[in-house]
Amino acid sequence: MGGDHGPRCIIPAVARSLAKLPELQVILVGSKESLVALSHEYRLPAERVSFRYTSEQILADDSPASVLRHKRDASMRVAIELVRDGQADGCLSAGNTGALMVLSRALLGTLEGIERPAIMAALPVAGKPCYLLDLGANVDCSARQLFEFAIMGSEAVAELSGNPRPRVGLLNIGREVNKGSARVREVSELLRQCELINYVGHVEGDGLFRDEADLVVCDGFVGNVVLKASEGLAHYLQAQVRDVLAAHPLLAWLSPLLRRLRRHDPDLYNGASLLGLRAVVVKSHGGAGERAFEAAIVQAVAASRARLAERIAERLAQSGVQSL
Amino acid sequence: MGGDHGPRCIIPAVARSLAKLPELQVILVGSKESLVALSHEYRLPAERVSFRYTSEQILADDSPASVLRHKRDASMRVAIELVRDGQADGCLSAGNTGALMVLSRALLGTLEGIERPAIMAALPVAGKPCYLLDLGANVDCSARQLFEFAIMGSEAVAELSGNPRPRVGLLNIGREVNKGSARVREVSELLRQCELINYVGHVEGDGLFRDEADLVVCDGFVGNVVLKASEGLAHYLQAQVRDVLAAHPLLAWLSPLLRRLRRHDPDLYNGASLLGLRAVVVKSHGGAGERAFEAAIVQAVAASRARLAERIAERLAQSGVQSL
Repeated sequence: MGGDHGPRCIIPAVARSLAKLPELQVILVGSKESLVALSHEYRLPAERVSFRYTSEQILADDSPASVLRHKRDASMRVAIELVRDGQADGCLSAGNTGALMVLSRALLGTLEGIERPAIMAALPVAGKPCYLLDLGANVDCSARQLFEFAIMGSEAVAELSGNPRPRVGLLNIGREVNKGSARVREVSELLRQCELINYVGHVEGDGLFRDEADLVVCDGFVGNVVLKASEGLAHYLQAQVRDVLAAHPLLAWLSPLLRRLRRHDPDLYNGASLLGLRAVVVKSHGGAGERAFEAAIVQAVAASRARLAERIAERLAQSGVQSL
Repeated sequence: MGGDHGPRCIIPAVARSLAKLPELQVILVGSKESLVALSHEYRLPAERVSFRYTSEQILADDSPASVLRHKRDASMRVAIELVRDGQADGCLSAGNTGALMVLSRALLGTLEGIERPAIMAALPVAGKPCYLLDLGANVDCSARQLFEFAIMGSEAVAELSGNPRPRVGLLNIGREVNKGSARVREVSELLRQCELINYVGHVEGDGLFRDEADLVVCDGFVGNVVLKASEGLAHYLQAQVRDVLAAHPLLAWLSPLLRRLRRHDPDLYNGASLLGLRAVVVKSHGGAGERAFEAAIVQAVAASRARLAERIAERLAQSGVQSL
């Protein structure tokens, strides 16, 4: 059980999720000391929660390769093994992203035709969330990889949002067909010809916040920078509003404003799906607080319930990408 | 005289700038009909404003190459020629960016060692602005180009902000030295060894809004997407706040909030500098309103007054980049 705050924040989030999601069953994986005391404190119901105690910790600066070789009793590894062995439907972790990626690939395997999984999450926009992938798993992507992301992401967004034909856009610096890098133009052509997805063309940076698409595809470098910049700016502007309101004598009048802004809080959009694996793995922000971790649990449950990995495998097979 | 709103928005912005900047002299370049009537309407002082009437218009979908060959009497071209011929210290345009780039390169030339100019602008953060470059002129950049951007940008930010040792960061997906693409790691090594700039290392997307650097360098694809995403999100969140306040009966109490948020309005940061040319060229947003265009005028005046192109040429010569 990782993340900056560990069980102290995860256990209360689990308690709240259990109260909200009646069909949820949880296996908590981590060190015995922390789990037993906190589970007691938060009165987790014994019939819906079980425990797997582990003895090792993955640290932020452990290299993914050394984690794979040496940390056999780390909670992250054991949680993924539970999924591999059919004892859990999905895995949620707030630990080291690189380690989660490497362990998931090694223990669960990738879907046919997929070299490396991609990471997908929603941007902090209220109402209709806009999903973005890849968010950093693949720094340099080929046109073929971007095409795979579109197929996988379209299926994932359909399952998570309930919209069977999500609009898929390609992030670019100009909306016109002739704009952008050669690679973007190449994948744009592939997407235009693909009948499995609802391709809506190029989307610019500001289009991410204009409801121009339900899913936007880009390489992991761009996606990671845009997601973090958006989170940074949203946090910054919200702090500005809170600062002013804190000094204000009529706070009670302003609750509609605070409520409205809270709907755009990046915490509510916590939870990134690793797509392209043979099972469901969701990554929470390392710095997630209780409320943010709860959002990630909701997403992991939705992906597991939808059997997302199997849906994506079917869709990839239909797309013919494996023979590209 | 271009942009979405043309002289109807530019002339009042010029009138206000003339009132605020006593040393400013303006040459307005555009069609006679629009300029004469509006200059009258806004009572532009005849001793500080002159006119160059032109007959052709560059349209949004004109290709830059055809503009260069065929539109010899377009206002953008004539304005750049005035700079080339020493009749103006700098050029400001709200027209087609691609055309401005091509005409500026062809008519003014680039500085020694610079292949293509880069575009630099400030992100909408109050207090200490964070500048970003390139913003879209160079879709795929070599390590050498990113190094040039750092040298040019550092000098430009020093001149525009008055801080002689601006902190220069490199946009990346992880702060650690071993993170990111091979190209990022290569340019990071070049920057670490360069004594001319105050290099502070990698900056992640959220670091742009955490005052981690005064200038952040990236390729034009990433920079364009991040800038537009930031503008889109800032506009979106501000609209949310305004919506709530508009429905609120105690608006008078909230003016500090509105004032504070206005400081983050992307309009106030309008004005992108084309760096690497032999003279000062500043690009305003096409959609700029009066207040935004005024911000771009202020920036063009500051760059002209600092003789920014000459300062950058000196710095490039010292850096040894021309022999790389």
